[in-house]
Amino acid sequence: MEGVLDANDALAQANRERFDGAGNYVVNMMSSPGAGKTALLERTLECLRGKLRLGILEGDVQTTLDADRLARFHVPLVQVNTDPGFGGECHLDANMVRSGLSELPLDDIDVLVIENVGNLVCPAEFKVGEDARVMVYSVTEGEEKPLKYPLMFRSADLVIVNKVDLLQYLDFDLEQFLGNLDTVNPGVQRILASARTGQGVDEWCSWLQHRKV
Amino acid sequence: MEGVLDANDALAQANRERFDGAGNYVVNMMSSPGAGKTALLERTLECLRGKLRLGILEGDVQTTLDADRLARFHVPLVQVNTDPGFGGECHLDANMVRSGLSELPLDDIDVLVIENVGNLVCPAEFKVGEDARVMVYSVTEGEEKPLKYPLMFRSADLVIVNKVDLLQYLDFDLEQFLGNLDTVNPGVQRILASARTGQGVDEWCSWLQHRKV
Repeated sequence: MEGVLDANDALAQANRERFDGAGNYVVNMMSSPGAGKTALLERTLECLRGKLRLGILEGDVQTTLDADRLARFHVPLVQVNTDPGFGGECHLDANMVRSGLSELPLDDIDVLVIENVGNLVCPAEFKVGEDARVMVYSVTEGEEKPLKYPLMFRSADLVIVNKVDLLQYLDFDLEQFLGNLDTVNPGVQRILASARTGQGVDEWCSWLQHRKV
Repeated sequence: MEGVLDANDALAQANRERFDGAGNYVVNMMSSPGAGKTALLERTLECLRGKLRLGILEGDVQTTLDADRLARFHVPLVQVNTDPGFGGECHLDANMVRSGLSELPLDDIDVLVIENVGNLVCPAEFKVGEDARVMVYSVTEGEEKPLKYPLMFRSADLVIVNKVDLLQYLDFDLEQFLGNLDTVNPGVQRILASARTGQGVDEWCSWLQHRKV
């Protein structure tokens, strides 16, 4: 396993040099399945249209469903499936990301968002050459997950707490969740958001704009 | 990877023989993080108290939080962490399950429920010696996940569609989800449930009782 991660780190570094050469700021976006990454990206692409040149690399085990959802925004977009070519892996690694880059016009992209496979464990173990890691967390997932899956929460530069429009219908204790988050990643930046209502989307888009290379 | 799975299959078979010898019916319960497996188990333990001798093997990357939640039911219970001993694996494998069995009085258990690590990919690749696979799926996760994560949905013997009390607040299209489920696993048995309200819990407990060895 250590050898695999070392080899991955070398490829991630090569990706990183390629991104730096093209002037890309790269976000590795991670979450559980169904936390709302794609819905948030739809909002993001609306919000930043004409303001920032976004590109998307979609990672999924199978299907192009997420890429299909985002195709209407006419931004550079590539789907990488971890199944047919890579054996059904539960995460993107640096080599998979590399394989998708040839289909993206990197020189025409300011910010590349890599939407990782929905999984709270392994994606955090594999660098892909990103500048920042953004976690999308749904309030439907419970308060204790930062403690149960600490590596991902600890490695996040920003946590977008999504689906807050549902808080009134849930028993979710937001303060307890944020306390658990601070336990594993003290003071990490967080945005309360709802991809459905649009809450927090401006703040997230502003975060992206200020991180433009 | 194939070698790993072959070695796992052999250990799963050994677990299976041990379960058969003790007269245990074994359920491998899988889901995304936060789909409600532990909440459903709380309901299950209430519902079947005095009717069926349940045992629980809790799988998590870290913490004993889930085992702590279930401890009040005073059933045989063991926590297996995939992190300290096993390197932070995103799933249980047959060896990890084996490692927990010595702490369970198998001869005093009718049904052993193994609560796997929250993850829609890898747990489906690793047999642990179970008789049946039960997936818990939360309606907050979207309609398309059976298509994106087909292996797990295909390998399930029963799908518990959880959190249906939230349907009225979501844009989730239940018929579309069930259609997607039938695409990858035609006719698989499903129970609409809410661990919060108790809906479907009787049906699930009845399913368990009828599968008693």
